[in-house]
Amino acid sequence: MTDKIARFLEEVRPPTPCVVVDLDVIRDNYQGLRRWLPLAQVYYAVKANPAPEIVAMLATMGSSFDVASRPEIELCLKAGALPERLSFGNTIKKQSDIAFAYDKGVRLFAFDSEAELDKLAVAAPGSRVFCRLLMTCEGAEWPLSRKFGCEIDMARDLLVAARDRGLEPYGVSFHVGSQQTDLAQWDIAVGKTAMLFTALNQVGIELKMVNLGGGLPARYRTEVPGIERYADAITHAMTNHFGNNLPAMIIEPGRGLVGDAGILESEVVLISKKSYRDEARWVYLDIGKFGGLAETMDESIKYRIETDRDGDGEESGPVVLAGPTCDSADILYEKAGYEMPMTLKVGDKVRILATGAYTTSYSAVNFNGFEPLKAYFI
Amino acid sequence: MTDKIARFLEEVRPPTPCVVVDLDVIRDNYQGLRRWLPLAQVYYAVKANPAPEIVAMLATMGSSFDVASRPEIELCLKAGALPERLSFGNTIKKQSDIAFAYDKGVRLFAFDSEAELDKLAVAAPGSRVFCRLLMTCEGAEWPLSRKFGCEIDMARDLLVAARDRGLEPYGVSFHVGSQQTDLAQWDIAVGKTAMLFTALNQVGIELKMVNLGGGLPARYRTEVPGIERYADAITHAMTNHFGNNLPAMIIEPGRGLVGDAGILESEVVLISKKSYRDEARWVYLDIGKFGGLAETMDESIKYRIETDRDGDGEESGPVVLAGPTCDSADILYEKAGYEMPMTLKVGDKVRILATGAYTTSYSAVNFNGFEPLKAYFI
Repeated sequence: MTDKIARFLEEVRPPTPCVVVDLDVIRDNYQGLRRWLPLAQVYYAVKANPAPEIVAMLATMGSSFDVASRPEIELCLKAGALPERLSFGNTIKKQSDIAFAYDKGVRLFAFDSEAELDKLAVAAPGSRVFCRLLMTCEGAEWPLSRKFGCEIDMARDLLVAARDRGLEPYGVSFHVGSQQTDLAQWDIAVGKTAMLFTALNQVGIELKMVNLGGGLPARYRTEVPGIERYADAITHAMTNHFGNNLPAMIIEPGRGLVGDAGILESEVVLISKKSYRDEARWVYLDIGKFGGLAETMDESIKYRIETDRDGDGEESGPVVLAGPTCDSADILYEKAGYEMPMTLKVGDKVRILATGAYTTSYSAVNFNGFEPLKAYFI
Repeated sequence: MTDKIARFLEEVRPPTPCVVVDLDVIRDNYQGLRRWLPLAQVYYAVKANPAPEIVAMLATMGSSFDVASRPEIELCLKAGALPERLSFGNTIKKQSDIAFAYDKGVRLFAFDSEAELDKLAVAAPGSRVFCRLLMTCEGAEWPLSRKFGCEIDMARDLLVAARDRGLEPYGVSFHVGSQQTDLAQWDIAVGKTAMLFTALNQVGIELKMVNLGGGLPARYRTEVPGIERYADAITHAMTNHFGNNLPAMIIEPGRGLVGDAGILESEVVLISKKSYRDEARWVYLDIGKFGGLAETMDESIKYRIETDRDGDGEESGPVVLAGPTCDSADILYEKAGYEMPMTLKVGDKVRILATGAYTTSYSAVNFNGFEPLKAYFI
């Protein structure tokens, strides 16, 4: 918790639940990334937190943006980002949205299938396109499925097909998995990418860019390596596989830029047990899985959680943490082994740390009548 | 699909994705429930679909309402429901919200813990309260956790404690699980409830009401028993355990009233394969887990899905169905064995049936920039 957030919560006492985001933390994270990975252009993954305040600040600092949809393009342009600094990174786009982006000046697009190339060739002629490689990396906290990317032999054929359709086969992207803590995964992914560069060289296509995706972590319950170690792993992987013929590099941090900048303040609505034999207390908060904490799905992301009663000598005991809705699936943590002070009371404030990413935008419009999660940017 | 919805889609051609809800179906479902279960008062579970159009129509027809939050109370009152017809059925309530409800005239409240009784005694003095029993029933499609209810011996003590605090111990509630298809579960639950009635009788408390909760199904992929068979199971269970001394009965259908009334129209954004060896096609729709289909979580609710190309003689093949966001968890069905026509094309319309309940309100505010799910009530 930063001093600025602590002061805001103390002075403003906003109604709970709410997220308070400290923009200074995002600025520092951005500058840290630039310092440690000076060769990589940062494309902020807007979906992590689409607040205009964040996008406008990063645009001023020279950031580029990875956008997922037409509304995200509109948001970035309105917040001052230039269209040539946008990458339409979603591999699943309606042709009408591609046309919209192209019309606004966007010239960089992701794809991973022939059907997407067909749309791009019609709606964004001559644009730079990069093909996403399928990775099923170990070690990421948020599950990576086979939803995005294609295998390497198909990627080669598709990049050739892109040239044949009048598009510019520009590069390759991959994603090692969100909240990736196994640094060796970058080496594996970059190695695959370099092989693809070579294969395309042999048919006269010189790719120019590697998009390293996201994967930089926020600080949840488990300690994670610092940004400098990530930068080191990436730099080593790139020089290892590309030697001194380095292509342009793009990195798309979302969680790694904004996650740590937010604190979610919540209130204990109820503490109870289900039977006289239960050991664990059920602690119900005024925020749950459908109010912004969707990433607790299957207890994937384990946030650090604080109360005013934490401290030395304070006895604590096991809890099940749940949200306030009438949905029986609205449970945050049942198996992850959370403990809270035995003195915890209804009405106590509970702070959920590192909630700057993937919270507000996941929030349901009005499930059970509850309002979407409020956010303050300071 | 009703003729009315088909005509609307044909004539209006609304942009996808959207849900179209036929209010006539809800009216018919409500009348069917009244006909088959004339002794039970219907409390519509507003959270299933909080559209004012639905609440207003049901209020006119004499329905009562099960509400989960302060905004749902405001919604019902505004739509013409009388406060004495509202049951504040969430067992997790802020004291300020209880006070709000009481001030508006609500006099019926759920609870399952001592801490909740403390709040009710202060903020809703003299009100009727009912205790929710913990059930972990088999046979429901949407998972039932231990989140709600307490065990029977604790419930007995809590109902006595309610009297001691100046509240009126009015009844018992339970929930057999949403989309419950094992009719025997009602007998088990009613049996437990009757035991609790007897136990309280022995300490001079005469309970007056059994709240049978929800659990009535909508028609998803698996065929379900008709409403008359549910009514029969419930009536048998009640007379079996209560004889001719039947208490008042409340039923709280949500899904069972509105689920079948809605059709979600969506569009195919992309069809692709990940490798040359893949058998299944990936079919990406413009609606996903975060745009309103949250109940596909863990592939729990399996919707019936139709396209214009379905039909005799049309060859179909396996598909993975996924949503349009950049979230790798935004997959609808990967293991459930869905098939779609081999001739399916990008741009084709796909209709997801029985999406009148638990769709619009689950929709994320702007995840990946996508707008919340639009709904039309006709």
